[in-house]
Amino acid sequence: MSQLSNASMNIIIRLHFQKNIITFSEIAKVIGETGGDVIGIDVISTSKVQTVRDITITVKNQQHGQSVMDAVQNLQGVKVISVSDRTFLLHLGGKIEVTPKNPIKNRDDLSRVYTPGVAQVCRAIADEPLKAHSLTIKRNTVAVVSDGTAVLGLGDIGPLAAMPVMEGKAMLFKQMAGVDAFPICLDTKDPDEIVSIVKSIAPAFGGINLEDISSPRCFEIEARLKQELDIPVFHDDQHGTAVVLLAGLYNALKLTGKKIESVKVVLNGVGAAGTACAKMLIAAGVQHIIGVDRAGALHRDEVYDHQNWTDFANMTNPYNEKGALGDVIKGADVFIGVSAPGVLTESHLKTMANDPIVFALANPVPEIDPDQAEPFVRVLATGRSDYPNQINNVLCFPGIFRGALDCRALEINEEMKLATAKAIASVVSDEELSETYIVPSVFNQKVVEKVREAVVEAAYKSGVARKDLFKEDNALATTY
Amino acid sequence: MSQLSNASMNIIIRLHFQKNIITFSEIAKVIGETGGDVIGIDVISTSKVQTVRDITITVKNQQHGQSVMDAVQNLQGVKVISVSDRTFLLHLGGKIEVTPKNPIKNRDDLSRVYTPGVAQVCRAIADEPLKAHSLTIKRNTVAVVSDGTAVLGLGDIGPLAAMPVMEGKAMLFKQMAGVDAFPICLDTKDPDEIVSIVKSIAPAFGGINLEDISSPRCFEIEARLKQELDIPVFHDDQHGTAVVLLAGLYNALKLTGKKIESVKVVLNGVGAAGTACAKMLIAAGVQHIIGVDRAGALHRDEVYDHQNWTDFANMTNPYNEKGALGDVIKGADVFIGVSAPGVLTESHLKTMANDPIVFALANPVPEIDPDQAEPFVRVLATGRSDYPNQINNVLCFPGIFRGALDCRALEINEEMKLATAKAIASVVSDEELSETYIVPSVFNQKVVEKVREAVVEAAYKSGVARKDLFKEDNALATTY
Repeated sequence: MSQLSNASMNIIIRLHFQKNIITFSEIAKVIGETGGDVIGIDVISTSKVQTVRDITITVKNQQHGQSVMDAVQNLQGVKVISVSDRTFLLHLGGKIEVTPKNPIKNRDDLSRVYTPGVAQVCRAIADEPLKAHSLTIKRNTVAVVSDGTAVLGLGDIGPLAAMPVMEGKAMLFKQMAGVDAFPICLDTKDPDEIVSIVKSIAPAFGGINLEDISSPRCFEIEARLKQELDIPVFHDDQHGTAVVLLAGLYNALKLTGKKIESVKVVLNGVGAAGTACAKMLIAAGVQHIIGVDRAGALHRDEVYDHQNWTDFANMTNPYNEKGALGDVIKGADVFIGVSAPGVLTESHLKTMANDPIVFALANPVPEIDPDQAEPFVRVLATGRSDYPNQINNVLCFPGIFRGALDCRALEINEEMKLATAKAIASVVSDEELSETYIVPSVFNQKVVEKVREAVVEAAYKSGVARKDLFKEDNALATTY
Repeated sequence: MSQLSNASMNIIIRLHFQKNIITFSEIAKVIGETGGDVIGIDVISTSKVQTVRDITITVKNQQHGQSVMDAVQNLQGVKVISVSDRTFLLHLGGKIEVTPKNPIKNRDDLSRVYTPGVAQVCRAIADEPLKAHSLTIKRNTVAVVSDGTAVLGLGDIGPLAAMPVMEGKAMLFKQMAGVDAFPICLDTKDPDEIVSIVKSIAPAFGGINLEDISSPRCFEIEARLKQELDIPVFHDDQHGTAVVLLAGLYNALKLTGKKIESVKVVLNGVGAAGTACAKMLIAAGVQHIIGVDRAGALHRDEVYDHQNWTDFANMTNPYNEKGALGDVIKGADVFIGVSAPGVLTESHLKTMANDPIVFALANPVPEIDPDQAEPFVRVLATGRSDYPNQINNVLCFPGIFRGALDCRALEINEEMKLATAKAIASVVSDEELSETYIVPSVFNQKVVEKVREAVVEAAYKSGVARKDLFKEDNALATTY
């Protein structure tokens, strides 16, 4: 994962040294000799004989950082308490906090937000449970639920180690869309338990974002929760990816002038994300899509041990084509990889139809090296931030939940996902649209705004929006 | 619950009116005629023919507010959309939010707090799970867990209706002690389920505050969680009350010059709080304590259907006294009521020892009317904010969790609770100490500070503190 190292070129060494044994300049000299560049010093504590300081040092890479630390560590009278980098410091103590919207300034405030005043608010909700949507955090709060079984590229690292990702997600929810999100990392992998736990904690929340739960468990967990809860349940790894992919495809097809109904799509990797992408594309009008997995192209003359694959074969591959990726990719207009590094080759690309569109989404290493693919494709998108056209879920989840919460949707349905994909695509104007700009930047503030509007409209049209202005305001009424 | 009305003297009426049918001044006139005082107007929306405005009106009480609203409602061309008061408005949309500690300013920030940079932090925790205490919110975060079965004086109102209380608690945790607390309201009453749910969500949290769970289920739930989790589990309704009560008793005894070892205490109401109070007092050195419940004084010659009562009888009532409250209160130095309104009478007080100390903690209506008791007691404390000596849990839970989190305690044990009671009592100086000032104000900032110090010291002494400065700092080290 080469790009990880880019994420930290500065290290901070916290060291304790005996002033009577060694001076700081002597330490700085050694750091310089090992090629480290001291760019900051913070005195943490100091006394006549000893001191603790944080030394910020620019180093070439982590190996170099290690050698600088070793050199310092070997000095007489010096003890390295800790070595950190900016990434770790950003996570120190966690990345989110829970804060009051209004300060409690005096006893009068206290009597309103807590006992005794709060009692009348509790009674109002007990009398009319829907009021919880306006008188509690439920109106604006999403649970980011994970069991830590499929975290980034790291696999099953458990709930504790998954927390930094879920906290980061909560930061993005708030900053991008004003949604309050809280991480719930579960110390169980049992789908029945996960379903019953999420159902039990649901009262506080207006939506459930499932995250980094391994396949095929994620299908059952999401399906059961969608059925049993009256708030949106959205497995971002599946649908977030599918929605942003479709947004990118809409704009890529605009460039090539091809119709979505007539393109041939080959999708490599029929896991959670792959299945969701196929369903999304079919909902968007794609008629010719072929799924390829370890068994080759999925077709209807074979019985698969995964029910998932049988279902997939039944809804795709209209001409029941067979063979390996190399066989079915011939004449394809679009390749979508949600699989593994290197499975796509130049010779594959050469057999595709004119103006090939390639989504190589394996992360961090794509199905084909972008530089190697570039000469043979019209449009190339990856999951990476260091190449153009990054297919990033951050374009989807903040806005789609913002919209769902604002209209108090019962669920996030197909119509709302399609509307989201169109809205994301629409942020790229015809003037801006190009082979290297088919999806907007994650920092483009128009994205959440447009997605929100589109989602709310789709929710009302499809009949899953519950918010009724009159009722909503009424939720305020005191229980006289 | 008379004092509820004090909590709101202003109402806000949101009304929609047809400008061509009625003018605002005509509406204001009618409000004035009904005795309402218009103190604020906010235009929500307006057009040529109609407008929506929020009218803030000072009224005498809720009945008066109702009559003002009725008068406005009867006007031609006026529609009252909603009526609210300041208490409800304070709860609108919930009282807490989840915010990033640092803004994500650019792609570089994003790559550190989220993918790809976050991956190295996840791996560090996967390699060394204890690092979660410094690299995630676990270090500073408490779950406020309730099933809504015993909320305030309202009883079993369910998880949705319990939310406003838990949110208020989260506000107090943050404002008083900088603790991040998040409400988890459970849609189940089954102790087994509650235990397994709390265990499963524990990874994100550094402590569990159980709240408003009915007795006797609360005993089993707390006991099992304490045993199975390695973070503090604290049922505030039991221990918070007991700790603050003991703090008040320490100072009351100072006034009367009596020794805690020699006083006779009668405790009326042997439920969750009562049992916890008795255990706390015994731990503090009280030797002569008698519990009274519906069956009268609990003694050892009777078999009770509640195991709880049998246990209680075995640890109290040294002389095995029998009879009703009126019998056993004779000669008592201290009365503690955690029971029901009006059970304590003047004649009871007259039979107590000299300098009677009375804690009448039933809320909102105490065991005896404070004004009626006043002539016959030396010290009187209640749970009410409108009389002196309020026994309020807010004096305990923020500081005790602050201390437990800061030393990464495995649990909150008896030593830490005793230290908390002493610390709270110590905030009242000998000069300040008086019959009407035995516990500090909930807004006294010294309380959290002193409680924190005392709790940390007690935790280290009793061997439940896990934090090791070197390890702690090391948690920062990158995984070179």
